Amino acid sequence: MSGRLAVVGLGPGDARWLAPEADAALALADALFGYGPYLDRVPARPGQERHPSDNREELLRAQEALELAARGRKVALVSAGDPGVFAMAAAVCEAIAQGPDAWRALDVAFVPGITAMLAVAARVGAPLGHDFCALSLSDNLKTWATIEQRLDAAAGAGFVLALYNPISRARPWQLGKTFERLRRHLPAATPVVFGRAVGRADERVTLATLAEADGVEADMATLIIVGSAATRLVARPGLPPLVYTPRAAETST
Amino acid sequence: MSGRLAVVGLGPGDARWLAPEADAALALADALFGYGPYLDRVPARPGQERHPSDNREELLRAQEALELAARGRKVALVSAGDPGVFAMAAAVCEAIAQGPDAWRALDVAFVPGITAMLAVAARVGAPLGHDFCALSLSDNLKTWATIEQRLDAAAGAGFVLALYNPISRARPWQLGKTFERLRRHLPAATPVVFGRAVGRADERVTLATLAEADGVEADMATLIIVGSAATRLVARPGLPPLVYTPRAAETST
Repeated sequence: MSGRLAVVGLGPGDARWLAPEADAALALADALFGYGPYLDRVPARPGQERHPSDNREELLRAQEALELAARGRKVALVSAGDPGVFAMAAAVCEAIAQGPDAWRALDVAFVPGITAMLAVAARVGAPLGHDFCALSLSDNLKTWATIEQRLDAAAGAGFVLALYNPISRARPWQLGKTFERLRRHLPAATPVVFGRAVGRADERVTLATLAEADGVEADMATLIIVGSAATRLVARPGLPPLVYTPRAAETST
Repeated sequence: MSGRLAVVGLGPGDARWLAPEADAALALADALFGYGPYLDRVPARPGQERHPSDNREELLRAQEALELAARGRKVALVSAGDPGVFAMAAAVCEAIAQGPDAWRALDVAFVPGITAMLAVAARVGAPLGHDFCALSLSDNLKTWATIEQRLDAAAGAGFVLALYNPISRARPWQLGKTFERLRRHLPAATPVVFGRAVGRADERVTLATLAEADGVEADMATLIIVGSAATRLVARPGLPPLVYTPRAAETST
């Protein structure tokens, strides 16, 4: 009857980013939950049940995982990247807060992972080398006015921005509006990094200036980094430029 | 003569957070550079030179590593956590930007790791479950006025804050001033997480409210997370409370 829930970060696409602690937590589980494509990244182990679910059903997925753990099972709930960054850990905490008393007595562990912005940054140099913000552009769970207020505050104060959930079929215009908004605060030459499907076979990392950055270059699997006024490029012969934010970056305003 | 520099993230203290890619990069190197205590975390391998250095000498350490790589050696330069977050990746980019042409032709790879804020967050739940900022409190390379401006902007707009480099012998008062400043924007009950030496044998994670948070509770090995007005606690019988920021968090202002 001593069930357990581990909320496990797989890291971005590449299996070489899966930390040993996360791998061990997956091996211990007798039931796995997660968004289907993320669960597909976990190698099958004998005797393990698999419960794939749809993208949008985060709270329901958390509740199902908690319910099974409360029945005494060893459950792992997987997230891509880090579970604590725009992923399943918050949904699990919400489910526990709203759920039956028994869920508050459960052994619940959160197992960290490399989140997408770190992997994308590593591909191009050190764009997050100084103060930065991570912001979700999804207005499913907050208003667009709140997002604009946060873009203004962060860019105006000299933070680099990592943009999660930049676009989806249901949210086609938000990223273009974001670039428009950021142009009020930042120079036209500010570097913008599009990191699509980083660590997967179809990875594509591209660079643009803020002036030319276009919302249509991204999809749901893209993480975008927008530099501050201090972010620079180092041109390299025969190699892509390095993008970095100096450690001594000051605000530009 | 095909030298190589890998800038490698070890993750926080626990070896189970070292990703396989990082481990492979360390195994390939014939020379290792890094701050002494971080280098001590890398198991010795036969035939590998070790070049430990002091904490403050980041640019010099980057230059020495690049110089050896330019002479054809396979060099790994280690950081705790992720090298791109307040660590060695930016120093390497700065050294390349300022250095001889040959350094711009070098094979340089950045290998991501789990950064401290993700590990500390995982210990308590999901405090970074919504929009957040990472901010260094060191005023060695920026003015205190810039730091205060960023604290105001981030807390005022509803971001959770992860504070790196909160305190040192040379910077004893900055963290106390930070809590004072944040009390202007945030409720007295806002949760504050002190994560000291996370993943090490002497790990200590404690909780406070913003009203009672005290700068003297931290040291150089501490990462601090200050919630937004939306961040909550879930009390649990016989277990530490969960700290989380709901996915639907709105700004309070």
